[in-house]
Amino acid sequence: MGPINWKVTATDGEARAGILRSRRSVIETPVFMPVGTQAAVKGLRFEWLEDELDAQIILANTYHLFLRPGPELIRKLGGLHKFSSWSRTLLTDSGGFQVFSLTDLRKLTEEGVEFRSHIDGSRRFLSPEISMEIQAALGSDIVMVFDECPPGDAGEDKTRQSLELTERWARRTKTRFDDLQESGMDAGSLSAPPASAGGRELRSNDVDFERGVIPRADEGDIDLSGRQALFGIIQGAGHLELRKESLERTIDIGFDGYAIGGLSVGEEKSVMYGVLEYLAPLMPADAPRYLMGVGTPEDLIEAVARGVDMFDCVIPTRNGRTGGAFTSRGKLNIRNAKFADDPGPLDPDCECSVCRRYSLAYLRHLYQAGEMSAATLISHHNLAFFLDTMRRVRQSITSGTFPRFRREFLNKLQENQEADV
Amino acid sequence: MGPINWKVTATDGEARAGILRSRRSVIETPVFMPVGTQAAVKGLRFEWLEDELDAQIILANTYHLFLRPGPELIRKLGGLHKFSSWSRTLLTDSGGFQVFSLTDLRKLTEEGVEFRSHIDGSRRFLSPEISMEIQAALGSDIVMVFDECPPGDAGEDKTRQSLELTERWARRTKTRFDDLQESGMDAGSLSAPPASAGGRELRSNDVDFERGVIPRADEGDIDLSGRQALFGIIQGAGHLELRKESLERTIDIGFDGYAIGGLSVGEEKSVMYGVLEYLAPLMPADAPRYLMGVGTPEDLIEAVARGVDMFDCVIPTRNGRTGGAFTSRGKLNIRNAKFADDPGPLDPDCECSVCRRYSLAYLRHLYQAGEMSAATLISHHNLAFFLDTMRRVRQSITSGTFPRFRREFLNKLQENQEADV
Repeated sequence: MGPINWKVTATDGEARAGILRSRRSVIETPVFMPVGTQAAVKGLRFEWLEDELDAQIILANTYHLFLRPGPELIRKLGGLHKFSSWSRTLLTDSGGFQVFSLTDLRKLTEEGVEFRSHIDGSRRFLSPEISMEIQAALGSDIVMVFDECPPGDAGEDKTRQSLELTERWARRTKTRFDDLQESGMDAGSLSAPPASAGGRELRSNDVDFERGVIPRADEGDIDLSGRQALFGIIQGAGHLELRKESLERTIDIGFDGYAIGGLSVGEEKSVMYGVLEYLAPLMPADAPRYLMGVGTPEDLIEAVARGVDMFDCVIPTRNGRTGGAFTSRGKLNIRNAKFADDPGPLDPDCECSVCRRYSLAYLRHLYQAGEMSAATLISHHNLAFFLDTMRRVRQSITSGTFPRFRREFLNKLQENQEADV
Repeated sequence: MGPINWKVTATDGEARAGILRSRRSVIETPVFMPVGTQAAVKGLRFEWLEDELDAQIILANTYHLFLRPGPELIRKLGGLHKFSSWSRTLLTDSGGFQVFSLTDLRKLTEEGVEFRSHIDGSRRFLSPEISMEIQAALGSDIVMVFDECPPGDAGEDKTRQSLELTERWARRTKTRFDDLQESGMDAGSLSAPPASAGGRELRSNDVDFERGVIPRADEGDIDLSGRQALFGIIQGAGHLELRKESLERTIDIGFDGYAIGGLSVGEEKSVMYGVLEYLAPLMPADAPRYLMGVGTPEDLIEAVARGVDMFDCVIPTRNGRTGGAFTSRGKLNIRNAKFADDPGPLDPDCECSVCRRYSLAYLRHLYQAGEMSAATLISHHNLAFFLDTMRRVRQSITSGTFPRFRREFLNKLQENQEADV
């Protein structure tokens, strides 16, 4: 009886369709997870994510919540689900990536990493143990190990050192994680999950946050432990042999799922695709595979083709805030003067509530006029496009037509590619 | 057969409950009109205004839309309703107030006013005729006359001069307005209104923007002309005799409704209440009375008590963006540290979707973390509170209990008054 249940329901080449059951919702994969860095998906109310976009899982960032409002406060208020009112699955990263990418002043030791807060410059410290304690206070459903993230262009020696430190940290992570679960420190724990409650129809207002909802399997009840799940992270930059070694070391420790870290950090696309092509088929088939921080619609399709199940990335909302829209015909930027009098939607093939109602001309006006609605509406469409694309990917895998879908989808993306996004 | 239909359905003292039928929706009064300066209510999607808040009328600003995106573009795209997708009633102001309050460099002549755009510093010109041409291009349902707005502390001589200019401008306004209606320049004209269509159930997606919807009266069809309505504006600052004179001059010209301008511009509250107490009962009973740019919940109640029917103000959304919430127990500011761990709602007596779901602690976190959702959620609650308050005011007038409602509502507002909003 584990914290999650994972089942592959169809394959097409290396591509997989699956069902991931967490203690809080049923997640159909491949899945794109909207990023809610500070326990909020920027510009979108949870109501839209639930009712229209039907997101079953979102991500929150341990680094940001550690600094503000702090894990003590969130624990006091019952964990991140209750604090934020998001009742479906929450995945939290470990803070490692942010410490190594956002902060300038940091001091790496065997024990952990000292850094300065980007908010007030105060000295802070993160370690495998502290990351687990924070994530237990957050009570997220899927916890990520605390890893070191070497630069994308790190040489083989540096990468190997980093990888070995990451392994030692992963072992410490797991030890503390297990202790915290045993001692009841998981703020999101579901002590008496009602196995008969439906997961797909979940609505926030119906949720008892003390008990949560354990989804019912299609073929009968699946017992879940009600505890947090812990995912390991494979590093190794672009070095295939080191990737393999990292994978083996990570599997040796043993996790509920496996993530690929350290990609989409500035390397060439071909490097990322090469690592995925080599690595994903070596990863355990009986656990979900999560590619962290990726990516564009093209990246998602290419990674699914190589066997990846889960993704997260800030670009739908980050680009949305600067007027960048992802569409079935490629990217567009709402600032472009040609949209000033265009009564059509962002994407004529999109069924989202923004595309059904608001014109390019109006959205461009909102953007030019500095209305925050421009950001919220374009971000909404972008997330709708990403989630809908993943649903179509899944459908094509299930029906054995993924290669054709991939070809046609990627061809169509070229239609109105622009350089200005 | 006029452009609007107005009926008083109940009175309680000077307070009136009424029904205002425009060519696009049925508006129950007293009514608070959310301000959509640039054809968008800041931070709120129209979906919320329609489906939850049930706003039947919003206001847009001629000055802002004149400068950006410009009336030519909006006319080309079918008028402001079609451009923005707001299908219910739109009221546009004349641009006068903004020219006199937002811009530094301006030159007032008999012909009109030259000013510099706050956007790019370019020289622009507004006059009664130009304001009417812009508002015809916008195709709003209720048009305001172009008036001069003297400073709130203007002396009697300056106020009289201003009032006389305003009268001459009002006559020019009406002449050009009538010409534009005759010559079919109203972009929002409803040439063949389907009198049998229901108004209250209106949903944007069901609307034929070429034809619109003329609401059906309870007691049978009411024929409306399908044209724009024109409201006059009474000036006169705090000088009661001049207010009376301005009223008489304005009635002499003849309008579909009458507005009180030049209040809430820095004068003492007692001056505003005094003017309303004197002026409103002198205003035509058979036309709606609109107090421009007002105000706080207290102001609304006090003005209704003196006979006013319509209001608009930016404070629900402006305060919402800086963390200020209006509640049944008074104002609060979400920045206040005491809310950091408060699991309760902004207003325990509010039934809006924000108060039903999001806690003070979470909203404060969003604000402190710089998430734009803080602004959108608090603005949403504030507008819900304003609109709901007006519905309760109306109900109390209808049931003859307005004096008690007024007393209890104002007493309760004192409960958690704070100085920091």
